[in-house]
Amino acid sequence: MRIAAFDDHKLGVVGADGTLVDITDLLQQYEPLGPEDLLPDLITHFGELKPEIERRAGARAGLPLDRVRLRSPVTRPTKIVCLIGNYREGTDRPPQILDFFFKSPEAIIGPGDTVVLPPHPATIFHHEAELAVVIGREAKSVAEADAMDAIFGYTIFNDISARGLGRSGISSFLGKSFDTFAAFGPWIVTKDEIPDPYALQVTVDVSGERRQDYPTSDMERPIHELVAYISSVSTLHPGDVICCGTNHQGLGALQDGDVVVTSISGIGSFTFYVRDELRREWPRGIDRETAQRVRAVGQRPAAQ
Amino acid sequence: MRIAAFDDHKLGVVGADGTLVDITDLLQQYEPLGPEDLLPDLITHFGELKPEIERRAGARAGLPLDRVRLRSPVTRPTKIVCLIGNYREGTDRPPQILDFFFKSPEAIIGPGDTVVLPPHPATIFHHEAELAVVIGREAKSVAEADAMDAIFGYTIFNDISARGLGRSGISSFLGKSFDTFAAFGPWIVTKDEIPDPYALQVTVDVSGERRQDYPTSDMERPIHELVAYISSVSTLHPGDVICCGTNHQGLGALQDGDVVVTSISGIGSFTFYVRDELRREWPRGIDRETAQRVRAVGQRPAAQ
Repeated sequence: MRIAAFDDHKLGVVGADGTLVDITDLLQQYEPLGPEDLLPDLITHFGELKPEIERRAGARAGLPLDRVRLRSPVTRPTKIVCLIGNYREGTDRPPQILDFFFKSPEAIIGPGDTVVLPPHPATIFHHEAELAVVIGREAKSVAEADAMDAIFGYTIFNDISARGLGRSGISSFLGKSFDTFAAFGPWIVTKDEIPDPYALQVTVDVSGERRQDYPTSDMERPIHELVAYISSVSTLHPGDVICCGTNHQGLGALQDGDVVVTSISGIGSFTFYVRDELRREWPRGIDRETAQRVRAVGQRPAAQ
Repeated sequence: MRIAAFDDHKLGVVGADGTLVDITDLLQQYEPLGPEDLLPDLITHFGELKPEIERRAGARAGLPLDRVRLRSPVTRPTKIVCLIGNYREGTDRPPQILDFFFKSPEAIIGPGDTVVLPPHPATIFHHEAELAVVIGREAKSVAEADAMDAIFGYTIFNDISARGLGRSGISSFLGKSFDTFAAFGPWIVTKDEIPDPYALQVTVDVSGERRQDYPTSDMERPIHELVAYISSVSTLHPGDVICCGTNHQGLGALQDGDVVVTSISGIGSFTFYVRDELRREWPRGIDRETAQRVRAVGQRPAAQ
């Protein structure tokens, strides 16, 4: 099932015919305190809502997708936890020590929105496409064996990154959390539709040029280990997001005028735009230097 | 004026006689969507509410403070932005490059609460007392000259820190954001009562032993510069918190059974407790090695 946010604070389900059926009214019974409660309420009560959502999805009477404005499927998670690297990237190194950072929910944008590059003197701005996990229930110190039960579904994340800012070049705030630097879309696919999250292909096309193109089979630490470990640190809530890390081998510059399509097989695809009032320019194509550095020494690029 | 959160989702003002007067009812007119909206609503409408709050504070008919349960004065800020170091600490080095990290709002505790040390193999757990700024209005790319206008008031923050975890030892997630690791109290003092935020003294006493004891006059970057810069990265909202960094010269270990009193002159004082089921032990007193390392090379300790 594909759950989408659209127009102004509405939730819908994508039907078998590819149209979008409004399900916002189903959530009023839970008396949401605000629009940011709709998704957590849907997730929390999904078991009881599922038959009616399935019925509506099958009725094939929805809105054509080109007639609605899709929004980020995650609206205001209490937290977005991101992995610092989590792909082997062609190396045979042992799995690296688990590490994470917070991406600010303030930075969220969705399909059709625009990434605004700030005037700050970054050495480059990169796209980083990632598989993202949406949490399905409150979870604190959950066991690895139970961790997949704590997942609601999957979505696509593009972790826009600014390099070379801050004291050490490693700054989750200056490297990762400028407003508009957290792109999510196009919807959340419930986990029953993704029986093997390690059999997906992640791609990024920038103004028609293929950049990232990697399989999730290359993931270093499996999702159940990530969820279990993160929940041992910080209590997870329905709607929280864990981003599984990127493969740095296809990163490249984002610059003014770029049209960026991020896709994951089995989930979907969404587009965002890039604006830079300074109209800075970087070479097009893949950033081979960063790719080589990450591959060669197992290090992340400057700002993760 | 001192604004406190108390009991179950109530806000109050501390009167001239030291009693606490409930002002929660004044906020109902703004139809808060939930308890986490009370403080942002109070801040947003403070101008119009102020005469009535002052009247109540002067009526001297409140609850004795020992009859209420004070809570963290910040409940669920959209973000807590922390400085990576911001004190000269006895050196004459030039100001360092500004850098920041996010502390998870999930980690918030208040007066009388307990910091729970996790079983993770940290090399040590430190207290880090800091002056915290509570934002008073939405602010995006605010000028330094206007930045103080964006402040509502000040409170006390203890940034509990775990060292030696994560890939590089520098991890805002594993070093800083375990549940219960963000202690705030005892209330917010409105900025009119703190004409000079650089004339305050910050202290920490751990089970009766003085540890941190430093003046805010030693701050490296002034508050208006911090607010302006942070707002150039991420939009600030009423109730968001900026923590001005700590002086590392008096840090020390936290361990099971500790009673920790954090104070700032002109604001107040609050106590939290420490529990560690593993009952690990570290030397008592100030961690001179960390103090020396930070002073000598201008570096932060392992996990900031």
